[in-house]
Amino acid sequence: MKKISILGSTGSIGTQTLDVIASHPERFEVVALTAGSNVELLADQARRFRPRLVALADKSAAERVSDLLPPGTRIVYGEEGIIEAAADTGADLVITALVGSCGLRPTLAAIEAGITIGLANKETLVTAGHLVMQRAAEKNVAILPVDSEHSAIFQCLNGETSKEVRKIVITASGGSFRERTRQELEGVTIEQALNHPNWSMGAKITIDSATMVNKGLEVIEAHWLFGTSYDQIEVIIHPESIIHSFVEFVDYSIIAQLGLPDMRVPIQYALTYPERYPNPAKPLNLAEIGTLNFRPMDMERYPCMAMAFACGRVGGSAPTVFNAANEVAVARFLKGEISFLDIERVLEQVLERHQVTQLADVQAIEEMDAWARHTASLI
Amino acid sequence: MKKISILGSTGSIGTQTLDVIASHPERFEVVALTAGSNVELLADQARRFRPRLVALADKSAAERVSDLLPPGTRIVYGEEGIIEAAADTGADLVITALVGSCGLRPTLAAIEAGITIGLANKETLVTAGHLVMQRAAEKNVAILPVDSEHSAIFQCLNGETSKEVRKIVITASGGSFRERTRQELEGVTIEQALNHPNWSMGAKITIDSATMVNKGLEVIEAHWLFGTSYDQIEVIIHPESIIHSFVEFVDYSIIAQLGLPDMRVPIQYALTYPERYPNPAKPLNLAEIGTLNFRPMDMERYPCMAMAFACGRVGGSAPTVFNAANEVAVARFLKGEISFLDIERVLEQVLERHQVTQLADVQAIEEMDAWARHTASLI
Repeated sequence: MKKISILGSTGSIGTQTLDVIASHPERFEVVALTAGSNVELLADQARRFRPRLVALADKSAAERVSDLLPPGTRIVYGEEGIIEAAADTGADLVITALVGSCGLRPTLAAIEAGITIGLANKETLVTAGHLVMQRAAEKNVAILPVDSEHSAIFQCLNGETSKEVRKIVITASGGSFRERTRQELEGVTIEQALNHPNWSMGAKITIDSATMVNKGLEVIEAHWLFGTSYDQIEVIIHPESIIHSFVEFVDYSIIAQLGLPDMRVPIQYALTYPERYPNPAKPLNLAEIGTLNFRPMDMERYPCMAMAFACGRVGGSAPTVFNAANEVAVARFLKGEISFLDIERVLEQVLERHQVTQLADVQAIEEMDAWARHTASLI
Repeated sequence: MKKISILGSTGSIGTQTLDVIASHPERFEVVALTAGSNVELLADQARRFRPRLVALADKSAAERVSDLLPPGTRIVYGEEGIIEAAADTGADLVITALVGSCGLRPTLAAIEAGITIGLANKETLVTAGHLVMQRAAEKNVAILPVDSEHSAIFQCLNGETSKEVRKIVITASGGSFRERTRQELEGVTIEQALNHPNWSMGAKITIDSATMVNKGLEVIEAHWLFGTSYDQIEVIIHPESIIHSFVEFVDYSIIAQLGLPDMRVPIQYALTYPERYPNPAKPLNLAEIGTLNFRPMDMERYPCMAMAFACGRVGGSAPTVFNAANEVAVARFLKGEISFLDIERVLEQVLERHQVTQLADVQAIEEMDAWARHTASLI
């Protein structure tokens, strides 16, 4: 039995992780679950999967959940509680499905404890890739990607050597507004932005898909996960999201990973790696799909993509600021405070006001993150 | 320096193999070349690559070539000569680029000598897969595929385990007549049949592509190479020949190999395996290609495909007869003796007259092969 801890079990990735686990009850045991405020769903999950420990975002949520849990379930809360769920419950694998840069300290704690990471929280690598990858290497801890694109690349690299990689190509669906020009983005609504054509995901990542920030974060994530230079990473628009990403080798042979858009496949691969098990997803029938389309990434249509590459290349605090400012801008858009196109204006202005520095430790990262959030909230 | 012997060096695969070798002169040494009757080209190749030995199909060709060769080149001929080129020149790898079932004895001789096979002669496995794979396993000799489809599958299986394979899907361009109905195949000419839309190949394989026999032979080849049951092999029409084939695993994850249609990529992979070197081919730009299309294999449009699956499933002498009858039928079509649609009629009738037996050794295979050729020549 592989022991699994899920940070963020009530979100989209968390619930699908439990869906996969439920289809292989003989293989996996859930030892810890964490949630923000969705107390009812967390309690349902706890009754079904019987973790030893649940962690909530704060004391009030922890108090609300306590009557709903099976007897003997330990309840903790706050950052300390989530760190305990990550690092101190005997897990073999922690799925980090938290949204945003709050995933950093729990991920680092799990690495210190020598626990394999199933990384669904890309902001951790974007904001602190240098610290996380260095410490994972020192502790010999595997960081297994859960994002469909990075899982695809990881699978394409099976049995290959990284020095023979010529480039990594990440596919992008183009998001909710891919058929609109920039002019047609003026005045789009929150509901329109949340209507992703291919993937059913959380709100934040769906907006990030529409702005292409999500793909930008994925570029930076790929840089850290696979040790690839930014000159060796490309993004291509592929509206059907069937080819999840691919790798070109020095002999111009390309290896790609394909499937229907269903997160349970990459989630399960992180859970079962290096093995593959049958999956509750549906098989892909290419003859039925009929056509796959591709078009070049357009940096003028998607300026956030250009910003992400620029931040990645500059390095240091630039990706941290890009990510933190984006989290605030998306939250403000979802609250109706700013327009869709304001998201990229906020990013541009915060990056303009920012002086790039090297971030030596978590505290420096958190201070820079706080500065970017504060600045983004005022624009 | 890896020592290479090329059986069939003046054909399409042979000349492209030398093209790849010429781009890595520090890695490869050519120790033997063989040809049928193209004496001038063989002599050119011998002057350029300086093999120790050349083998010709017969004595007259050997006599014609002798004045054209560099001093000290050993000249042999006939089946015995080709076997010497395969097994007795100190090669590390033999590329079997002969056309038709004449590749069998030389391939078996190389296996006996413990030499790795780069298999471009699919008829060898079709006609004697059981003998070849068994002997290769006993002698611990690797059979590396050169066909683009099988190289694709081989690459997709890198780092994977065969028990986790759900199915292998071989892509088919559809050949010269893919846009024609069966009615529109009446009266097509040799020139039309030889005009393949994607690949520049030899005459026999180009006709086999138009009849879909080639894909049928590839199905049988895949069965032997990868130990896959016929229920786990599918064929899909993919007109662009960009995805060269793919593998679906038990978790519904698909790994595919892609590239522009250029045989130098799979040829080189067999030469350099398990490494990858830079290749003289051109890179694939999917955004430039724009669209990839797929449609289901239609067994009524392509009855030779159904015949190949049926022969593979029956096993024993059936694939041997299918292959031998096809060689004769294609040769007769290319001589103008029979029409394009007669090729499948010849195959059908020879298979109807055939009583399936098990073929215990090479002699039994050759006798059955001769019976099928004789029968096919009379229909």
